[in-house]
Amino acid sequence: MKILDGKAIAEQIKEEIKLQVAQYIDDGNRPPHLAAVIVGNNPASETYIKNKEKNSKLVGFTSTVYHLPADTSESELLNVVQFLNEDSEVDGFIVQLPLPQHINEERIINNINPEKDVDGFHPINIGKMVLDLDTFLPATPSGIIELLKRYNIQTAGKHAVVIGRSNIVGTPLSILLSRKNEHANCTVTICHSYTPDIKEFSLQADILIAAIGRPAFVTADMVKEGAVVIDVGINAIPDETKKSGFRSVGDVDFDEVSKKASWITPVPGGVGPMTIVSLLMNTLKAYKRRFNIT
Amino acid sequence: MKILDGKAIAEQIKEEIKLQVAQYIDDGNRPPHLAAVIVGNNPASETYIKNKEKNSKLVGFTSTVYHLPADTSESELLNVVQFLNEDSEVDGFIVQLPLPQHINEERIINNINPEKDVDGFHPINIGKMVLDLDTFLPATPSGIIELLKRYNIQTAGKHAVVIGRSNIVGTPLSILLSRKNEHANCTVTICHSYTPDIKEFSLQADILIAAIGRPAFVTADMVKEGAVVIDVGINAIPDETKKSGFRSVGDVDFDEVSKKASWITPVPGGVGPMTIVSLLMNTLKAYKRRFNIT
Repeated sequence: MKILDGKAIAEQIKEEIKLQVAQYIDDGNRPPHLAAVIVGNNPASETYIKNKEKNSKLVGFTSTVYHLPADTSESELLNVVQFLNEDSEVDGFIVQLPLPQHINEERIINNINPEKDVDGFHPINIGKMVLDLDTFLPATPSGIIELLKRYNIQTAGKHAVVIGRSNIVGTPLSILLSRKNEHANCTVTICHSYTPDIKEFSLQADILIAAIGRPAFVTADMVKEGAVVIDVGINAIPDETKKSGFRSVGDVDFDEVSKKASWITPVPGGVGPMTIVSLLMNTLKAYKRRFNIT
Repeated sequence: MKILDGKAIAEQIKEEIKLQVAQYIDDGNRPPHLAAVIVGNNPASETYIKNKEKNSKLVGFTSTVYHLPADTSESELLNVVQFLNEDSEVDGFIVQLPLPQHINEERIINNINPEKDVDGFHPINIGKMVLDLDTFLPATPSGIIELLKRYNIQTAGKHAVVIGRSNIVGTPLSILLSRKNEHANCTVTICHSYTPDIKEFSLQADILIAAIGRPAFVTADMVKEGAVVIDVGINAIPDETKKSGFRSVGDVDFDEVSKKASWITPVPGGVGPMTIVSLLMNTLKAYKRRFNIT
């Protein structure tokens, strides 16, 4: 078993971005600018946003975070979105989900300028992904594809089984893996809560992706010998030995599954760091588009 | 084996549309208006457009066809698209594909007003389909879902195997069948030219969809006993006994496969008529949106 070290690859990509940014600044351009909007104080969202901010700065981006109170109205949030859409100093921005109940997430996302939608959540960007047109790919699926690419894991002709059909991970990843290009061309099966026996399919997987959000859901008996296993889950479970009182576990029973897998992502340090790096890559892309840098 | 009679269901749906349209006209509204643009004289396209025109009139729609010469420039075609986008008398329109080589299809489709895109090919409509938002679904996949629905074929928890990953049939159908709603909820596998052994997957299918465009590709040994078989192919093969010199055959070897299938679509008279009817349904939807008819 070998580790798909998302953390190491993410570091490598950040170095590459950093060098590019330094060059653009040397050439007299301003740095790329990634903004984020966070409404309320969901702890997981705050952790993600802090992480995003830290990494943005690390590669030389300008990073701005708009912290809005939990009782921000939908129209106030739409005004912030409109402001960011129009601000020529901002290349890309994200509105951190989930939003408070009283705000219609769909309406907010649909109002983001697709050219600044570095999360890749706007319907037009998702449609372009389906059509294999140039777009901003959603961060987690894109990070997984990049990880496979960097480790030269062959995908063409392989059977990829995706467990989970969320709009931000399972569904877009299943689409991306089936597309006609050299880093895809998989036969793809998507399983979900209505699949009577997930094991029937997971056992067939050459590449198995777990994205369901249930701790250690994928056990060794569900995995084929030699499979490539990608664990998207980040589940906080109580752990008294930790200062925070919690530790992160994936959707895969790492200890047992790693004995059968040819390659496997750890949690933490697998898919997570690749997600953040994809967001940086999308922001750099938006920046290059704006300034016609090829 | 029982026949999924697309022709009969299409007739039934057309009757339903016709009654609705008659009521709207009685209420003092103008009839729905479906326009089509055809460039050059591809025989298959002309047949389809004629068929569309006939069926539009049958249900009481106004139907207009813009026949443009094969040497129409891209900017001339864009002007026609712009005219139709703005014409308040037109509820929906299609630009018949394929277009001549010198015209960029992507640019044309992206310029169609998504609210009039009754083919459901605009990226924003495809993105909305992925996100399960209200949209115009592409005609063939939508017609197949409607056919299964009208025959009360259970889909939830079934394994659907889609052979073919085209942007207009295989890929959108695979997405639609996996969505979380009562007429979907399938475990879905998508196979294509890179799948080493399609039979390995097709044999597992509870619902098998052939959309590859190869005559009689799916043979009986590839089908599980009792499967529901949907044949999207319309392949013209030479036949001297026919006046035209051709007959249509599907992607499925009907004679042999029908002995194993529980349900099967014939060619012609299966998926084809449902495609046209889906276009009519989309047009009616665009019309009702325009006039706020619920």
